[in-house]
This record gives sequence, C-alpha cells and structure tokens, in this order.
Amino acid sequence: MSLASSQVAIRFHPPSYDIRVESVPIPEIIHPDDAIVKIHFSGLCGSDLHVYRGHEAIDKIHTCGHEFIGQIVKLGSSFSVHSQRLPTLYANLKIGDKVVCPFTTSCGECRVCRSGFTCRCIQSKLFGSPALEGAQAQYIRVPNAGGTLFNLSDPDTWPVSTPKQVSDSSLLLLADILPTGIFAVIQALSHPKVLPVLAATPWPLHGQAFSDTSGLFPKENVPTFAIIGLGPVGVCTTISLLDQLGKRQLPSGFRIVAVDPIESRRNKMRSIYSKVCDSEVRSREIFEVQSIKEAKETVQTWTSGVGCSAVLEVVGNNSALALAYELVQPFGTISSVGVHGERPFPLTGGQLYDKNVSFDFGRCPVRSLFPMAFDLLIKRQDIFGGIGDESGLIDRIVGFDEAVEMYAAFDKGVVGKIVFDPWKKI
Amino acid sequence: MSLASSQVAIRFHPPSYDIRVESVPIPEIIHPDDAIVKIHFSGLCGSDLHVYRGHEAIDKIHTCGHEFIGQIVKLGSSFSVHSQRLPTLYANLKIGDKVVCPFTTSCGECRVCRSGFTCRCIQSKLFGSPALEGAQAQYIRVPNAGGTLFNLSDPDTWPVSTPKQVSDSSLLLLADILPTGIFAVIQALSHPKVLPVLAATPWPLHGQAFSDTSGLFPKENVPTFAIIGLGPVGVCTTISLLDQLGKRQLPSGFRIVAVDPIESRRNKMRSIYSKVCDSEVRSREIFEVQSIKEAKETVQTWTSGVGCSAVLEVVGNNSALALAYELVQPFGTISSVGVHGERPFPLTGGQLYDKNVSFDFGRCPVRSLFPMAFDLLIKRQDIFGGIGDESGLIDRIVGFDEAVEMYAAFDKGVVGKIVFDPWKKI
Repeated sequence: MSLASSQVAIRFHPPSYDIRVESVPIPEIIHPDDAIVKIHFSGLCGSDLHVYRGHEAIDKIHTCGHEFIGQIVKLGSSFSVHSQRLPTLYANLKIGDKVVCPFTTSCGECRVCRSGFTCRCIQSKLFGSPALEGAQAQYIRVPNAGGTLFNLSDPDTWPVSTPKQVSDSSLLLLADILPTGIFAVIQALSHPKVLPVLAATPWPLHGQAFSDTSGLFPKENVPTFAIIGLGPVGVCTTISLLDQLGKRQLPSGFRIVAVDPIESRRNKMRSIYSKVCDSEVRSREIFEVQSIKEAKETVQTWTSGVGCSAVLEVVGNNSALALAYELVQPFGTISSVGVHGERPFPLTGGQLYDKNVSFDFGRCPVRSLFPMAFDLLIKRQDIFGGIGDESGLIDRIVGFDEAVEMYAAFDKGVVGKIVFDPWKKI
Repeated sequence: MSLASSQVAIRFHPPSYDIRVESVPIPEIIHPDDAIVKIHFSGLCGSDLHVYRGHEAIDKIHTCGHEFIGQIVKLGSSFSVHSQRLPTLYANLKIGDKVVCPFTTSCGECRVCRSGFTCRCIQSKLFGSPALEGAQAQYIRVPNAGGTLFNLSDPDTWPVSTPKQVSDSSLLLLADILPTGIFAVIQALSHPKVLPVLAATPWPLHGQAFSDTSGLFPKENVPTFAIIGLGPVGVCTTISLLDQLGKRQLPSGFRIVAVDPIESRRNKMRSIYSKVCDSEVRSREIFEVQSIKEAKETVQTWTSGVGCSAVLEVVGNNSALALAYELVQPFGTISSVGVHGERPFPLTGGQLYDKNVSFDFGRCPVRSLFPMAFDLLIKRQDIFGGIGDESGLIDRIVGFDEAVEMYAAFDKGVVGKIVFDPWKKI
C-alpha cells in the first residue's frame, strides 16, 4: 500500500501546557518486527496530563497519546510467510487486521513478558513519550508488533458472548483504562491480606486459626473498600470492583466508597452506578460516592475507626497516597495504579511499619489482561459503549481541531473521557 | 503466692546507649485481665537496639525487652472459675502454667485480633516500650493475658511430633524472632506476584494466558530470592524459607542469596546451612551467603539482570530498603519486617511505579503464627536448640551482670542471639 508522506498529529512542546496540531512524516518500518497502523481512534488519558503539566520534565517535542485502535497497513519482514522466526507471535497478524494496542510495547519473548508482566518487558517502550512517538496521529509505528498488538480480527480471541455490535470507541478502552482498572482490582482482591477477609476466615488463609475460633468475623466485619479518583480510570476500576465482588457472592456482602473531590465526576459515577443497579439484582452491597471529607467519616463509621480492607488509588499524586494510607486498616493493602512523579514519597517507613501496610505499585500489564478486560467490555457495553450520555463512559469524540481545548478542559476536570477521531475534517 | 516486693531489671535511660541494671518494684495485677509471669528467660533482640541507639527518641526510663518465657504466678479476676466472661480465652490459663508471650499484647476479642492481625489489636501494647514495662526483668505484668499468652502446659497445643526434650531457651524464640522470620517468608511466598513464579505459570495466576503459551517459563526462570540481614531474625527467615520452598518440590528448583555485610554473621549462616544440608536430601536448590557487593553481582548473573522474585528485608534501615529495591525484579515483591524509623523514605513514588514494586511492611502477628512457628521450632531443634556452638542459633545465655557488655557487643554485631537468665547470680 502506498501512503501519503505526511500526516497530522497532536504534539507536545516543552516545557508545559503547550499542545500543537502539526504536520509530521508518516512513520516507516525501521525494524523487521515493526507494524504501521492506521489509527481509527485515539484516546486522551489522565497520564497524558502528567506530560502536559510539565511534571515529567520532558524536553523533547513528540507526538502525544498512548491509546489507539486501528488497522494494520504495513508489516516488517518478520511477519513474512517465509520467516521461520517466532511463528506464533508473528503469524497472527496480517495487513488489514483490526488491532488494539496496549499503551506500552512488549516483545512477548523475554522472561518478563512470558511471566505475564508485559508492561515491564525488557524492551518495553511507552507510546507518546520521548522514547516512542504517540497515538494522537493518523499513523503510528508499533515496535515488537507481534508481542504487542491484540488482533481484533481473529474470532478466536473474542469472548463467546460477544454481540454483533461492539463500538470501536469502546474497544479503544482496552488500550489502557479498562485493563488498568481491572489491574487495580485484582491486585487488591488477590492480596493475601484481603483474601481471608473475603473468605470470612482469619489470616493467614491456610494457617491454623487463633485459639478462639468461635465468633470469628462478627457480623460487622464486612469487607470494605475505597476507590480514590473517579476520572475515567476510576470509573473502570469501580465497575470492575463491583463486577468482581458481585460474582463472589460474599456471605457478609461488601461496602465501597468511591471518592473524588470533583462534583461532576461524582455525579457521573452515580449515574453509571444506577445503570449497574438497573441491570442486575444487587444485594448485600453498600455503595457510596462521596467527597474526601465525607468518605473519611463514612469509613470511620462503617468500620468503627479500623479502616478499609483495601484502598484502590488511581490518581497518582501524593495527596491521593496519603489519603489511601489514612483510609486503609492496619494489615490492609493499597493498590496504586496512578503514575507517581512527585517527590518526596509522602509516607515514612515508620508509618508503613506501624500500620502493617501492603502496597502494590505500578503500570498495568495490559497485554496479559486483555482477555479479562474484553469480557467486562462486552458485559458492560451499556456503560462502555455509550458516548456523551449521562451513564456512558466516553464523553465526546472530537477531531484534532478541538485538541488544545480538550487538553485544557480535561486538565481542569470539566470533561470526562475524550476520544480523538484523527480523520475528522479539521 | 507471696512475692518479694522488689526485683532486678535492665532499664533504658534516655537519650541513648545507657543501660542500667536496677532494682524496681515487682509488678502487681492492675486489671482483671492481667497476669503476672515469673520470667525464666528473656531475649535481647535487634529491635531493642533501635531504642538503645536513641533512634526512637524515647524520653522515658523503662525496663527493656519484649521476649520472654516463664510461669504464671498471679492472675486477675477474669480468670476466676466464677467469671462468665470470655470462657475460651480466659479458661485456658491457671497459676503455675508455663507460657511464652508474643512481643505485643492482643486482646483476642476485637475485630483486628479475630481477623488474625493480632499485633495490630486495637489495644495492642509493645513490651519494653514507654507504654509497657519490658521483659528483661524477673517478673512482668501481661495485660490482656487471655488473648496474649500461649500456654505451653497444654499438651493439645504441642505439635504431635514433639520430642520429650525441647529446650526452654529455644521456646523463647517463639516470642518474636522465629515467627517474625516465618512472617517475612509467608508474606513473600503468598504474594500474587510470586505465586505464579512458584507455579511456573504466567501472572495472573487464575487468568487467561498470554497468547503464546509455548515456551513459557524457560529453564532459566528459576524462582530467586534474597534475604537482607543475617542477624538472628535473618537466620530464622532463612531457615523458614528453605523449609517452605523445600516442601513445595518446585519443578525448577530455587535460588537464595542471603546477604550481610558482617563476616561473622555470614559464617554462622553457612555453618547453620550445612546442618540443614546434612539432615535432608537437598536438590535443585542453590544457596549462597554473600556480602552486599557479591550479592548484587550474583543476582545480576543468575537472572540476566532482571532481579529477584522476592526480597526479604529483615534489617530495618534505609540502606536495607534501598538494597531490596535494587535486587528485586520488576513485578517483584519486598517483604519488610524490619522496624523502620529513619526519615525520609529512601524510595520515590516514581521508582516504585517504574518497577511495579509490591511491599509488605510491618510487625509480625506472633499470636497467629504460633502454630507454624512451633512446628518449625520442633523440626529444627538441631539449630534452634543449640547454644553457643557454631550451628546453634543462640550464642550465649548470660546473667544481668553482663547486660551492659552484651548490649554493646550486640550493637556492634560481634555477638549473635543473647538470652538473659534473670535468676543467674549477679
């Protein structure tokens, strides 16, 4: 296929708050493992704001964005039928395939990838960073494409329950925010300090019990969670937590407080939750959406001052971490998927020791979580497939002509999830 | 029983490095749940050194120590046969019973205790602190004695394999260091990032696999651990880790590097390990005892620069935490049981995010781990029961006349585990 030589892209200009729509060259294959993808949709994500605000001290002009869905238009020679290399990874992609891409590349070959920790692949690069041009463009080069891209054209990869209509804009959510929300949840729910609470049995799960086992886990000991941050990732986290806990049929039910200082986000979350309630029989669950001050009081009241079993932190700043510490119970765990750049760390070793806190930090291995994310995406098309309505996750689909305005509005928290259509006339 | 009115105790005098043997009153029952215990042995522990060195900025003169074994000589009215309160917890103790005590008190009644998190009981107090007089004395008052003391006179609580001879000095190890070592190990081995590595399956453990499952976990992907600190707790941690991993019959075996900057500690560890090797058929395990510099190179070589699956940090200072971060792999976990008082925290949120690090911090819930610790204590009497020999854990049993000298020697790392006999003529 012959492509034009230039395309339009959203570019970051250092040091901060400077986004420009510019003409740049269309990328070429530069390594045999590369693919070139024509982008259908790309997302604006909360972590783009870390760059935009200048918090990451980036001094290189580069194309923004790390979420995209599109179609393969060129493939490197590794994908040739004559190549004997990496048959499984490199036989599953062909020109014309519809693909969604994790926000980081993964080779699929190294020990770290094969352990399932794909976001920390030893060759991993983050799209939309100085190391790799981003997705808010019309075309993108994908290194290690065989290990990175998820092929949506392959019916074997689709959940059996898939309806005929799944919106492309909702599939974009697989690139980052839906798996990231799921990641926050499974880190919390699989933690050895949380598993016994869910099972209403004392820690350690497979240990011998405290001598008096009668009266263990009294009625008031309901698994209790807080989610800090109700931007788009926070909404995905909440939907996933409700889904996971709902499936488990916990004998004592559960309680969740979802926290955000911004009222419009709280309203959106409430409206989305009402859709969850409408579509399923919900029982033995308590769900509150509150401001920070309200949430502190709620956790205090619910738990008689003890705190939450787990706190899911999806913001990525020090005040969110400090709040997580305040809300978590002794022997509780904090699952933190926010991108942290602030210094110094807001907690001391003494504080962590004194409360026996567990922490899980870091970036979601999206490539490993695609199957779980895909299932939830299909199950909740009512939420993930909606655009612009009260209870749809995506707020607006816009052209690059609105890029400058949308970055500024998202920075102020006055719009929700924004999706770019790079082909909309500008 | 009528007691004399005064006893001898080892007392800390602020601000630092000032330990004195003094005559103090014998404690009395002051609450119906109290017990008074006549102490047979009490331990000198690494965390006593935090107080001794003035790192905890304690300004109150108090009796030191938080490890003891002894015999009940007085009980509060809650233990009376006429009391209808807490029958299970308070019916299991009588005057004359031999008991061992966790280093913190636990009521056994609150939600936190019943969840198994006994060291964070809402009434919990640490022995040998300004809040509660310590164990380096002849008598001690134990608050919440029904929920705190472990009755060694009750044959139902002893493992079935118990031999007739178990040394009293080894039973003292149940008060802190042996359960603390086990705690470091079970936190690491039950972590959801480590479980799949042990099972030679990709993360997440119950998720769907990365698309190419062939060749997962190649031969070189051997579960790899580092233990930082080979003082007495580090030795207990190492013995427990070897025991736990040995039981699991891992298909790919395992590798451990045990690290300490002090040569005498490394030699002691090697000598203890040779006893483990002599008594069991060991295969598919690699065990090294090394200096910090050597260990960094070893982990680099073993893992091709990727790092350890888990690091067990049993020191409690910032350089140990920083080393743990350096040695752990992306998506690895750090189990930290050291007492941390230093500021600021030596890692940034950015570092934790960048390596997807998990942390488990804090104090061991000894009361919940007694059964596991008891089993290991009995199984390895050859190590825990020895006194003063090359491969016994306890270095010396001394009287209070040697207290000043022993604190100074332990502070310098030139002696190992010291046990005080408070009745030895001084």
